[in-house]
Amino acid sequence: MSFTLAQRAHKMNPSVIREILKVTEKPGIISFAGGLPSPDTFPINAMREASERVLSLDGRAALQYAASEGLPQLREWVANDLRKQGMQVSPDQVLITTGSQQGLDLVAKVLIDAGSQILVETPTYLGALQAFMPMEPNVVSVDSDDQGVDADDLRAKAAGARFIYLLPNFQNPTGRTMSEARRAAVARVAQDTGLPVIEDNPYGDLWFDRAPAASLCSRLPEQSLYLGSFSKILAPGLRLGYVVAPKALYPKLLQAKQAADLHTPSFNQRVVAEVLKDGFIDRHVPTIRALYKRQCEAMLQALEREMAGLDVKWNRPAGGMFLWAQLPKGMDAVKLLPHAVDKNVAFVPGSAFYAANPVHETLRLSFVTSTVEQIQIGVAALAQTIREHLPR
Amino acid sequence: MSFTLAQRAHKMNPSVIREILKVTEKPGIISFAGGLPSPDTFPINAMREASERVLSLDGRAALQYAASEGLPQLREWVANDLRKQGMQVSPDQVLITTGSQQGLDLVAKVLIDAGSQILVETPTYLGALQAFMPMEPNVVSVDSDDQGVDADDLRAKAAGARFIYLLPNFQNPTGRTMSEARRAAVARVAQDTGLPVIEDNPYGDLWFDRAPAASLCSRLPEQSLYLGSFSKILAPGLRLGYVVAPKALYPKLLQAKQAADLHTPSFNQRVVAEVLKDGFIDRHVPTIRALYKRQCEAMLQALEREMAGLDVKWNRPAGGMFLWAQLPKGMDAVKLLPHAVDKNVAFVPGSAFYAANPVHETLRLSFVTSTVEQIQIGVAALAQTIREHLPR
Repeated sequence: MSFTLAQRAHKMNPSVIREILKVTEKPGIISFAGGLPSPDTFPINAMREASERVLSLDGRAALQYAASEGLPQLREWVANDLRKQGMQVSPDQVLITTGSQQGLDLVAKVLIDAGSQILVETPTYLGALQAFMPMEPNVVSVDSDDQGVDADDLRAKAAGARFIYLLPNFQNPTGRTMSEARRAAVARVAQDTGLPVIEDNPYGDLWFDRAPAASLCSRLPEQSLYLGSFSKILAPGLRLGYVVAPKALYPKLLQAKQAADLHTPSFNQRVVAEVLKDGFIDRHVPTIRALYKRQCEAMLQALEREMAGLDVKWNRPAGGMFLWAQLPKGMDAVKLLPHAVDKNVAFVPGSAFYAANPVHETLRLSFVTSTVEQIQIGVAALAQTIREHLPR
Repeated sequence: MSFTLAQRAHKMNPSVIREILKVTEKPGIISFAGGLPSPDTFPINAMREASERVLSLDGRAALQYAASEGLPQLREWVANDLRKQGMQVSPDQVLITTGSQQGLDLVAKVLIDAGSQILVETPTYLGALQAFMPMEPNVVSVDSDDQGVDADDLRAKAAGARFIYLLPNFQNPTGRTMSEARRAAVARVAQDTGLPVIEDNPYGDLWFDRAPAASLCSRLPEQSLYLGSFSKILAPGLRLGYVVAPKALYPKLLQAKQAADLHTPSFNQRVVAEVLKDGFIDRHVPTIRALYKRQCEAMLQALEREMAGLDVKWNRPAGGMFLWAQLPKGMDAVKLLPHAVDKNVAFVPGSAFYAANPVHETLRLSFVTSTVEQIQIGVAALAQTIREHLPR
């Protein structure tokens, strides 16, 4: 090859999950593996009407180049929505991004030098690691439990780190949520040490019974970046997310955004701004919550029933899309996967989500893309697979 | 600020043009400054019909996550279109990007280390410099004339460079086009020295009388990357572009793309794939060519008439959106601009487009967003401004 690769390109790898999902591509398979929202929740009719209105009333503007910051009415909507959740946000702190994945890419460009120490949860969202790695950080895992990151270990590791990346609500991959007490403790560590917080919240609206505790950003407005997304409350195929930044940092993120893709598609921003009018989200999101709650309960019931007698553990998410399970000690989820696929069920081995020291027994199960009936059949097949491959 | 910026963030700057354009934002101004296609060319009705069809027939897929490579039927269309232009391209070499600006960002991530030497034309596209700079290259300007980059100077500077970035057709900012002889000479230098070529071709379809000579990529298939865009032949607000890469380099660009925004909006890709069916482009693009040719001729005639007796020079583009002019020696286009704005006409000073040693007398004029009548009034106002500020 006549091209010379940049050093950082050698650190880019094909997504492990992507490679894993290839194994699971099989007609008729029941997949708990994907991270896809349920397409039953996509507001297709609202999108049709909004697209028609935007193109007929405002087609020339919707198809033209636009400001890198994003559409003013969408930035306004986001700021307003976050203010309702107790955050002090003005529209000029909101940068519209091409999905919240782009927010992570911009964070990496603006805040990570080669060798910079950055802190992550154990385990953490793989897409964030993929966005951070090209800028060649030194990634350090902070001990975590079912409440999220451990505040004492965080304090011990905070010195000199560029930031900690946290996903406090219904985390991907574990489905866990940081308690109020834990948030308060983490915010105190951040205040004491000056450690910036990158708070990623794509799932926060998908609670089952009650909204999660107030965001970290609301406690650390000058010391945190907040990433949000329309992927889970409207549809991911629009690629619409946002970053909320303190005013001192905003211009650098904006410059990085301009260089990255000039702006997020104006058509998509206008269509979504149109969909969001008249409180659409307040009517729409409760339907997603109800669906996901029903499916989560179905999975929990199936696990209770089917895993009886097997030494399998799992958690009970309070929202989101995923739950986290642990196989009997000594069992490797990566090795189990092909056997599960033979029985027409798929999951993601949890080891993919660890920055270091993977726990090989763990696995992530999505409860949102299968029907209740598929969940029952799939969990039964998974239990049978485990039973046939128990360590001796 | 509690955040520590990455080194590269200090090298990011607000777009000079963006800052300049702020000066020109004034109601009723005739702007030759923007780089916007004419909204008269946007196929709004075709987009309406396509959006309706995509959402009603395929809404769930159009709104779901999708493959990072891009929609198969769109990659197929691109490969087919390029094959008609004499390039050997298979669909699996096509990576759909969020505008061709993102292609430049991916190139930078995959091919530039801090201190890497990269070569550019004199002057060159500012957005490319903005995409490259965060990766901290050492940018070297290669001498250029009205045929494009000088082959001898290129040969002298090729050793050790990571690539040369070229915009051979109706270049932004100059409007110039590389002749067949120059392309052959540049391709020979690339072959002799092993220098990779990044070929950016957003304007190639916008020729007035005849298509430009064959691409550099068709002469250097294993040694070049080719960037294309739907921004100028359909609409920029969709943010749809593509990179064509040799198979050896494709996986690294794909990994960078995944980390950058997972994928380009599936909705937009499907809508455009639908619009492109049945040879739409073959009917649509000739209408853009005819419009832009008419407007370019109007500007050339106005320049002949209004600049008579002033020592102003300009070129005659064979396509695209811009022409390049040079003020009387010693006159600074940056200083002239506010006086022009006072007379209700705007342009972009050419100095913004030089990686080094700007020529202060130059300016870029877009002929595509103003009507013929506005062009006549605007050029007259510009001539009057020059006349009133001639160097003594």
